[in-house]
Amino acid sequence: MLSPTHRQILRAISSSGPITRSDVGTQLGLSKAAMSGLSRELIDQGLIEEASSIQRQGRPAVLLDVHPNGAYFIGVSMLSTPAPMALIDFKGRIVARATVELAAEPDVFAQRISDAVPVLLGTVSKQRLAGIGVALSGLVDQDQATCIKSTLLGWQDVPLAALIQKRVALPTFVENDAKALALSEKHFGDAREFSTFTVISLGGGIGSAHFIHNRLHRGAHGGAGEIAHTTIEPQGRPCRCGKVGCLDTIASISAILEAAREAGLTAGTLHELEQAATGGSSAAIRILHRAGAALGLAIANIIQINDPQMILITHREKSFSGLFATVMQQAIQTNVLPRLSGRTPIRTQRLDDDVWARGAASVVADSFLHGLI
Amino acid sequence: MLSPTHRQILRAISSSGPITRSDVGTQLGLSKAAMSGLSRELIDQGLIEEASSIQRQGRPAVLLDVHPNGAYFIGVSMLSTPAPMALIDFKGRIVARATVELAAEPDVFAQRISDAVPVLLGTVSKQRLAGIGVALSGLVDQDQATCIKSTLLGWQDVPLAALIQKRVALPTFVENDAKALALSEKHFGDAREFSTFTVISLGGGIGSAHFIHNRLHRGAHGGAGEIAHTTIEPQGRPCRCGKVGCLDTIASISAILEAAREAGLTAGTLHELEQAATGGSSAAIRILHRAGAALGLAIANIIQINDPQMILITHREKSFSGLFATVMQQAIQTNVLPRLSGRTPIRTQRLDDDVWARGAASVVADSFLHGLI
Repeated sequence: MLSPTHRQILRAISSSGPITRSDVGTQLGLSKAAMSGLSRELIDQGLIEEASSIQRQGRPAVLLDVHPNGAYFIGVSMLSTPAPMALIDFKGRIVARATVELAAEPDVFAQRISDAVPVLLGTVSKQRLAGIGVALSGLVDQDQATCIKSTLLGWQDVPLAALIQKRVALPTFVENDAKALALSEKHFGDAREFSTFTVISLGGGIGSAHFIHNRLHRGAHGGAGEIAHTTIEPQGRPCRCGKVGCLDTIASISAILEAAREAGLTAGTLHELEQAATGGSSAAIRILHRAGAALGLAIANIIQINDPQMILITHREKSFSGLFATVMQQAIQTNVLPRLSGRTPIRTQRLDDDVWARGAASVVADSFLHGLI
Repeated sequence: MLSPTHRQILRAISSSGPITRSDVGTQLGLSKAAMSGLSRELIDQGLIEEASSIQRQGRPAVLLDVHPNGAYFIGVSMLSTPAPMALIDFKGRIVARATVELAAEPDVFAQRISDAVPVLLGTVSKQRLAGIGVALSGLVDQDQATCIKSTLLGWQDVPLAALIQKRVALPTFVENDAKALALSEKHFGDAREFSTFTVISLGGGIGSAHFIHNRLHRGAHGGAGEIAHTTIEPQGRPCRCGKVGCLDTIASISAILEAAREAGLTAGTLHELEQAATGGSSAAIRILHRAGAALGLAIANIIQINDPQMILITHREKSFSGLFATVMQQAIQTNVLPRLSGRTPIRTQRLDDDVWARGAASVVADSFLHGLI
């Protein structure tokens, strides 16, 4: 059994490793003797290892790191069909992949996931598997157990975690896609060094999630990060959510391409629309300008409200450097308090095909590191 | 010396007390023996006391609470002149009050504060005084030491904490007024039971601050909560911050009364403007409607982005229940995702005269509880 202090040490090593015992001890206010004993126990349990050593003040100091085989996590992405599944190790590396068909019937889908678990595990011991995470596009309750609403799947109040858990007998979590992505970036990706950051995932819809004080901020009803439905144009278009003028109706890739179709443009991708704008199409310029200004205003609102250390915009486009991105950057500058303007780094990142399954698995890794499982 | 675990226990008792030893132990994952020893040490140091007892499962259980005389904190409010100062005890109760004249010259002001400390302390031992907090209207850096910018005082980059500290030899913190208020509400007020909430202080200007995961969220540059400068009307009026269309130019009490003056109304207070609206003045109705819609949209943005458990709106008005408040409530409903709409309690509270000095003192209490001093 791991104590809360064991988990604290694991988290410190996972987020800052490779790291010396004394640095972990300083971070956590633990004595040298306590650190020595506790880290020994974690090594004996195969969760951490003495990975390497450095010279410090003329003497070698051993660096601790998590043991890749110390724990495994399975993730399922319900964002495409068939649904990608991945098994990741304690360093976040993908060890095995599989796919399962989506199903409108939650029970059928849960059974398919259950059937795929042994295939994914292969020779990895089930003892080391900490649990299963499922990422979906939609609102998830605060217990990460129930899909409150997914317009994409037509689901409402589906207790998906329980349906899977009763079949696989492993802790199971459901999470919103953007929140899963933020966990993945924090534990295994580009956001590892930040305690407070916001991820914005730009795709068919727009997702967002915040890390604050080194924890994913889910919100009181799992609703934190729903910037897609902040009102940008109070007299704007109806949104599928029931409101009008939501960011999603202006700046999501779907909305942008829909606006392009309505304007009689043939662009089937953001890249093609950007090319049309570069070629002088005033309709393309107008659409991209409106979308960039809307997304920039929404991001400026996040900066004004939360002042994160960094904002990471993720996308699946060929590039994110055209008119859309330029206007977005300008709109951020225009709408942030001059004294704070330009101080929040805006990073962009193109996502690979594994991103959502890895994100889903990271939900389990996060619960494991925080002693929730 | 207090260990990190001592501070954890103090925090648990301060936020949930009166509370039994076993409940604290369960909350923190501490054994019965550890809790017994550590709580004894805190009692011996005069920081907590056995306040009362309850019957539990037929047996009496002792309830621990913080000792009112365990620690004292001084707060200074720079929001009015002369500046109110207060000495509060460990339960947040005001023990003594004083005032000092503001000064344009930071050194002069620091000296006046220093001179007032012994007066405030009276018979309270300086040993028990944990430090001094200063609340001001403006941006404060992330170390709570420097006033980055205060338009009100005409200050820029003033290292006020250091100026005071070198005179009084006590830990000193500077904090933005809304953030100080949030700390006061969390430690001693209506927000004690919430881990994640937002305070919005409605006055001459609009302030805001967030508690997230039981910590004040200051942001990477101390800028979290600057909703006054979120853009509500992209084509709106110039704001003193340098932007246009900021919430502050529409919904602050100053902006509302300025708009009333421009419309030729004689209303000198929000109450009088509300009365004019009730009397049928279309100009008054228009101004209050615009302000309420703007504030409601800004609050809806906070809900969409952070999904807090509760929003507390504070004000100094006779009442906050007229057209302004009604339209604000409607605008919140209209601009929040229907599935989440109506689920965030919006509380209002009229502030007393002690609020800012108590808030400033709470900044020190928070640092004390978190072992930063």
